[in-house]
Amino acid sequence: MRQAGRSLPEYRALRERHSFFDLAGTPELCAEVTLQPVRRHGVDAAVLFADIMSPVLGMGVDVELVEGVGPVVGKPIAAAADVERLVVGETEEWGAPILEAVRLVRAELEPERALVGFCGGPFTVAGYLVEGKPSRDFVRTKSLMYREPAVWHALMGRLTDHFARYVAALAAAGADAIQLFDSWAGVLSPQDYVEFVAPYSARVLEAAGVPTIHFGTGTTERLLEEMARAGGDAIGVDWRIPLDVAWQVVGEERAIQGNLEPAALLGPWDRVEAAAQDVLARAGGRPGHIFNLGHGVLPQTDPDVLTRLAALVRDYRPSA
Amino acid sequence: MRQAGRSLPEYRALRERHSFFDLAGTPELCAEVTLQPVRRHGVDAAVLFADIMSPVLGMGVDVELVEGVGPVVGKPIAAAADVERLVVGETEEWGAPILEAVRLVRAELEPERALVGFCGGPFTVAGYLVEGKPSRDFVRTKSLMYREPAVWHALMGRLTDHFARYVAALAAAGADAIQLFDSWAGVLSPQDYVEFVAPYSARVLEAAGVPTIHFGTGTTERLLEEMARAGGDAIGVDWRIPLDVAWQVVGEERAIQGNLEPAALLGPWDRVEAAAQDVLARAGGRPGHIFNLGHGVLPQTDPDVLTRLAALVRDYRPSA
Repeated sequence: MRQAGRSLPEYRALRERHSFFDLAGTPELCAEVTLQPVRRHGVDAAVLFADIMSPVLGMGVDVELVEGVGPVVGKPIAAAADVERLVVGETEEWGAPILEAVRLVRAELEPERALVGFCGGPFTVAGYLVEGKPSRDFVRTKSLMYREPAVWHALMGRLTDHFARYVAALAAAGADAIQLFDSWAGVLSPQDYVEFVAPYSARVLEAAGVPTIHFGTGTTERLLEEMARAGGDAIGVDWRIPLDVAWQVVGEERAIQGNLEPAALLGPWDRVEAAAQDVLARAGGRPGHIFNLGHGVLPQTDPDVLTRLAALVRDYRPSA
Repeated sequence: MRQAGRSLPEYRALRERHSFFDLAGTPELCAEVTLQPVRRHGVDAAVLFADIMSPVLGMGVDVELVEGVGPVVGKPIAAAADVERLVVGETEEWGAPILEAVRLVRAELEPERALVGFCGGPFTVAGYLVEGKPSRDFVRTKSLMYREPAVWHALMGRLTDHFARYVAALAAAGADAIQLFDSWAGVLSPQDYVEFVAPYSARVLEAAGVPTIHFGTGTTERLLEEMARAGGDAIGVDWRIPLDVAWQVVGEERAIQGNLEPAALLGPWDRVEAAAQDVLARAGGRPGHIFNLGHGVLPQTDPDVLTRLAALVRDYRPSA
């Protein structure tokens, strides 16, 4: 469960004293907040504490995480010269604290639990860099794609080179799996995804060298099919497509992750239980299902509900 | 093409002197801006100038359209008492200027051109009323659905009663078709859509008494199927599902509207042309296709590109 920390008082206490990027850039603190949800809920995997924009800090981009807004970029990318200023760096140099955090988490985590490293999808990151901030429709981004395809492909190429090194370094430092989180892929038509995005996501996924999870939100069945084609040992699905339908789309030989509606956790327990059991029933006990929410944990979620949910999933036995 | 006016200098000139709701609430001005895109582009139908929130003005709700944000509600709905304050009104009373605008447009429009009346989907409007403003995830809305289903159903019931009278009155005044515009339906899982939304949308669509178009954005194939099941003589589709795939989902006996990516119009003409031809080829010349963009016209669109696009569609002949 990504962002499971946000709902925890022990995380909030640390965030009162440190900015997000301070926590993410200080190995001991990053390791601590990565492990907090595992200790609380006893889940099978830790998700490395990082933001989608973490790696672009290492490219020389000025990003701020503004409360209630999201990542805000000092100088949005609009032309070829802006792309050329982006540094494709050695993760061991710019990302040394992150890799140290990975080693600390891996050393403390029980061997049977996995550490999932985390990287933004090149499209979503490019979108933030072009828009300057989260956008409803990514019109500026699409406009750049259509009008200046050479600039677009240069930008995606550079992000991909940087991210490929990043995920390989995370894996080398001890991440057991890599999740590529393309939050905004769903704003694109499948045709545009194939033309402007798929080859880049594929390259990042191939570079990991460990099992990968490929995730987007707001994806139609057709787009999910294209994302699965681009790569990923497991495909993450949000709550918009029932899990059994999604699994059919991506193919049964592929693992699947998902897909409880995160907002359902704000309802009464009987609704949480019914929704979780619906996901589990649709998975039908088949191997290759990673139970998860369909997106990050909402900050207002009651941590005790998450603990109870984790127990429900652990104890679930499909009826014969 | 909804919101086709936004890109026109003649519309902007009027907007400099009048607020949105001033234009929409003054019959002569509303008729004028409704007709402007028809005169410019020679399209087959006029779309009544109105906002999704227009009808709730008649329920006693205090709404402002804030530039760059969207509808902002003075006192968001949070409890049963807030719902009880919503007035289910007689359209002939609160909406007299709108109905007069419909009559003026119908009188001026050539008989072979249609006037499409327009009503927000009960879910989307309820979402704005609960959130107080547009939201990325509608978490407050979902939380109300899950925690206070009785309040939710009371809210939807009241909106539906009001909207049903509204669309029937639009049709009686001369609207040839009604479009139900459920912009945010795509944030819901198909299961939640069926439980919390579908019966209400169905009632509004049934009340129209003229052909209806049922439209949502960000819909997966599964959700589109449920929206089609709820009703609509034609189903509107955004650009996220290729038109032929969408048509198969909703059934070939149903008409379909869509679905050119609106941002494609910001690119060079050869891209506009290829994208439009792709939509037309997928429709395959079958009767029952209403060519349209997948969502509203973006304000930065060049009006000449829209004129050229309308001509392209009019002159298109499917290859044998």
